[in-house]
Amino acid sequence: MTAVDWRAYFAEREAQDLAEFEGFLRIPSISTMPEYAGEVRKAAEWVVARMKKAGIPEVELLETGGHPLIYGRWHVDDGKPTVMIYAHYDVQPPDPLEQWISEPFEPQIRDGNIYARGVADDKGGLFATLLAVEALGKTAGGPPVNLVFFYEGEEESGSPSVIPFLEREAARWTCDVVVSADGLMWDEDNYSLVLSSKGMAGGQIDIFTADIDAHSGIYGATVHNAADVTARIAASFHDANGKIAVQGFYDEVLPVTEQQVAEIQAIPFDEKEFIGRLGAKATWGEPDYSTLERAWLRPTLDINGIWSGYLGDGGKTVTPSQGHIKFTCRLVPDQNPQAILELIRMHVQTHLPAGCRAEFQMKIGTAQPFSIDRDNPFLIAAEETLRELAGKDPVYGRTGGTIPIAEVFKKHLGAEMVFFAFGLEACNAHAPNEWLRLQDFRTGPIATIMYLQKMGEIPAEAYR
Amino acid sequence: MTAVDWRAYFAEREAQDLAEFEGFLRIPSISTMPEYAGEVRKAAEWVVARMKKAGIPEVELLETGGHPLIYGRWHVDDGKPTVMIYAHYDVQPPDPLEQWISEPFEPQIRDGNIYARGVADDKGGLFATLLAVEALGKTAGGPPVNLVFFYEGEEESGSPSVIPFLEREAARWTCDVVVSADGLMWDEDNYSLVLSSKGMAGGQIDIFTADIDAHSGIYGATVHNAADVTARIAASFHDANGKIAVQGFYDEVLPVTEQQVAEIQAIPFDEKEFIGRLGAKATWGEPDYSTLERAWLRPTLDINGIWSGYLGDGGKTVTPSQGHIKFTCRLVPDQNPQAILELIRMHVQTHLPAGCRAEFQMKIGTAQPFSIDRDNPFLIAAEETLRELAGKDPVYGRTGGTIPIAEVFKKHLGAEMVFFAFGLEACNAHAPNEWLRLQDFRTGPIATIMYLQKMGEIPAEAYR
Repeated sequence: MTAVDWRAYFAEREAQDLAEFEGFLRIPSISTMPEYAGEVRKAAEWVVARMKKAGIPEVELLETGGHPLIYGRWHVDDGKPTVMIYAHYDVQPPDPLEQWISEPFEPQIRDGNIYARGVADDKGGLFATLLAVEALGKTAGGPPVNLVFFYEGEEESGSPSVIPFLEREAARWTCDVVVSADGLMWDEDNYSLVLSSKGMAGGQIDIFTADIDAHSGIYGATVHNAADVTARIAASFHDANGKIAVQGFYDEVLPVTEQQVAEIQAIPFDEKEFIGRLGAKATWGEPDYSTLERAWLRPTLDINGIWSGYLGDGGKTVTPSQGHIKFTCRLVPDQNPQAILELIRMHVQTHLPAGCRAEFQMKIGTAQPFSIDRDNPFLIAAEETLRELAGKDPVYGRTGGTIPIAEVFKKHLGAEMVFFAFGLEACNAHAPNEWLRLQDFRTGPIATIMYLQKMGEIPAEAYR
Repeated sequence: MTAVDWRAYFAEREAQDLAEFEGFLRIPSISTMPEYAGEVRKAAEWVVARMKKAGIPEVELLETGGHPLIYGRWHVDDGKPTVMIYAHYDVQPPDPLEQWISEPFEPQIRDGNIYARGVADDKGGLFATLLAVEALGKTAGGPPVNLVFFYEGEEESGSPSVIPFLEREAARWTCDVVVSADGLMWDEDNYSLVLSSKGMAGGQIDIFTADIDAHSGIYGATVHNAADVTARIAASFHDANGKIAVQGFYDEVLPVTEQQVAEIQAIPFDEKEFIGRLGAKATWGEPDYSTLERAWLRPTLDINGIWSGYLGDGGKTVTPSQGHIKFTCRLVPDQNPQAILELIRMHVQTHLPAGCRAEFQMKIGTAQPFSIDRDNPFLIAAEETLRELAGKDPVYGRTGGTIPIAEVFKKHLGAEMVFFAFGLEACNAHAPNEWLRLQDFRTGPIATIMYLQKMGEIPAEAYR
C-alpha cells in the first residue's frame, strides 16, 4: 500500500466537506428538549445517509424508544482487531441565546474557527470518523481493521434509551476496543489521552411550601417562602468550604493515590489560564485537593439551574409557593449513581422544614465512572499516532466529564474505550459560541486514518 | 334631602355598571412591566373619561414622567371638609398564567364572584368611588363634602414618578383627610379599619461568578457555581429560625407595645384558616412573635424571585456564571427604606465569596411605614358607617402590606389616610385567579356614599 498524502487528499475536498458539515450543524438535534425530537431524528437520518455514501456496507437506524441509535459495520479480516467507532450526533441546548455572536444553528467561519452548537461536541468528531473511513475505502478498498459503528443521539441526556438497547443487543457490537471521537485535546498545542472519566447522576427537585403564591404584604414572614426554602436546600449541598455536605456522599469514593497525585503534578497546567477562559477570578471547591485533583479525581454536585417566584422584568411583591433545583453529580470510582441519588433525596427530605414537601424527578441518565489501564495496546497505538502527528508526547490526562456509555461498553462488551478527539476545552462545548478550529477539523480525519492503520498492526495476542 | 334607597338605585343600573366595569378590567394596566406602559395609559384615559361622565367638574390627566396620574376636584362648600379620594388603576402582573382558570384580562362571573386581574386590587375600589360620586351628583346635585381625586397608575411598582410629582405640586391636593379605596375587609363577615401599614424597600441583586457559563464536566468543583453562590446569599438573609440575619436590620424597629399585643390578641383570627387559604401547612417566621404580630408589626425580607442557570425542560450540565435575586422588605416604624437597602447591599458584599461580584438594582419604589391615631374624626366616621352597614363593629386591624403613598400624603399634605375598602384577603390580589364578590361590588358605592355623608357632618373644629 503506497502512502497517501492525506493533507493533499483532504485539502482537495475541503470546500465540499465543509459545506456538507455545515448542513449537519444546521440541524438543531437537542436531545434534552422533547420538542426537538424531530430534529434529533433528522440528524440521525442525515448520518445514516452520509455513512452509506462513505461506503460503509452495513448501516442501520435503530429504534430505541428514545432518540435513534445508528449501527454500522465494515468487516474486512477475521485476523484483525474489531474497532468500534463511537460518537454522538445530538447537541446541548443553545441557551442563553442572546450571548451567541452568530446563530447557534447557522454555522459561521470567523478567524479560522467554525462557530455552531455541537461543532466541537460532537458533530465535528463524528464527521471526522466518516471522512476517515470514506477515504480509506476510496484509497485502499476498506479500513485496515474491522469497524463497527455506534453513533448515538442521547449523549447529552445521559443515553437513557440507548443503554438499555445496548444491554439487550450487545452482540451486535462485539469488539476489541471502543474509540470515542467525543473528547478533547489537552490544549491547543498538545494532544491528550484520557485515563478516566467521571460517572453521572442528576435530576430535578421540586419544592412546595403552599398551593398558591401569596401577597407578600399579607403573608410575608408568616409562612415559608419557597424561594427561601429552595435556596436553603441548594445551599445545604455544600459546606462553607466547598465540601459536599450530603451525608454519605464520599463514603464509597476511592482515596486519591500518591501515584495519581504525582501524575497530575507532572502535567502542564496553568490554573490561572484555566479559570481565565471563563473570566472567573478564583478557584473553589473541596479543601485539601488541588484544582486538577478536584476536576479529575473528586466527585462533584453541581446545581445546573435554580428558580422560584417572579423572574420577569420589574418587581412583584409575591411570596412564592414553589421552587426548583436542577442538579448533576459527577461521580468517581466506586460511587454508585443510584445510591448517590438516594442520598440526595434523603438529604433534601431531612433539610426540608416542617410543612413543606419535595418531589423528585431523577430523570437524567446515570453513568458509572470509567477508567482504562495505562498499558492497554490500543491506548499505546493512540499514543504513538499522536506522537507522530505532533512530534511530541500527548498528555495523559483525566476528565471530570462523563461518557455514560463508556462504562456500559466495558461491562457489556468487555471493551475499553480510547478517547481520540480534537476539540479544545476552550471550545464552549456547553456554553454560547461553541467553536472548533478549522485546523482541527482538518486534523481529525487524518489522525483517525493513522490510528486505524496503527491498530491494524497490533498482533492478535496483544488483545485477545 | 330625602333619603335615597341606594340598594334599589344601584340595582337598577347594575347590568350597565357591570358591563362598564368589565371594560375597565379588560385593560392590562400592568405598571411593573415596561412593555405594558401603553395599556396603563389606556386605563388612565378610561378613568378620565369615566370621571367626566360621572359629573366631576375638574378632571385632568397629569404627565409624571412615569405612568399618568389622574387629578380631579369637586368643590361644593368652604365650610365642609375636603376629602381626597385615593385609588389606583394599575394592576399586578398576571403570571403564572397557566394557573388562571379564566383569562386574567377577560373578566368572568362565576359563583357570585367576578374573576380578573385587578378586580380587587384596585379597579373595584376605584370604580366604586366613581359610582358613588356620580350617584350623589345625580340625586343631590353634588357630594356632601369637597372632593379631590388622586387616582394613580404606579401603586404596584411603588409610585416612583407619582411621589416626586406630588411633592412638587402638593398644593393641588390640599385636603383634610385621604380616603383610600385600596384596602381589605377583615374577612367575609367583618369590615375592617387599618391602623398601620408597612413601608417597603426592594430591588434586584445580580451575582456574577464568571463571564460565561461552563461545562460542569470540566469546571464542576473547580470554580464557583453562581447558582450555589446565589442560593447561599439568598439563604443568608434569614437565620435558621426565620429571623432576618442582615446586620442592623432591626436596629431602628420600634418595640412592639403591650397595648398592640393586647389589641391583636382581641382580634378574631383563625391562623389555620389564614394559612389554609394558601394550602400552606405551617407558619414560619421570627421566633417570639405570633403570626399576626409578625404580619402587622415586624419587618420582613421576602425573596420574590430567584434564578440561575438552566431553567428549561430536561437537563443541562452547566456550571452557571450568573444568578439573580429579586426581593422586597416590608418595613415598620422607624425603619428607613434607603438605610435598609444599604444594609442589604453591605450584607451581600460581606457574604460574597472572593472572586465573585454583585450588582444592585435598587429600583423598586420605597415607602415609609404608616400609622393613624385611633381618635381621628374621619376614622371614627368610617367606623360609624361600617357599624351601620354591618350592624356590628368593624375590626381595627393593621396590614403587612404597603401603601407607599400614605406616608407621603401625611408628610406633604398633613392628611391622615383612612382605608375604606371592600376586597378580601382571600381575593388573590397578587396571585392567579383574583376575584371580588359581586355583593362587595354592590356594597362599595353605597358604603362610600354613606361615609361621605357622615364626613359632611363633622364640624370644622374637629379637624382644623
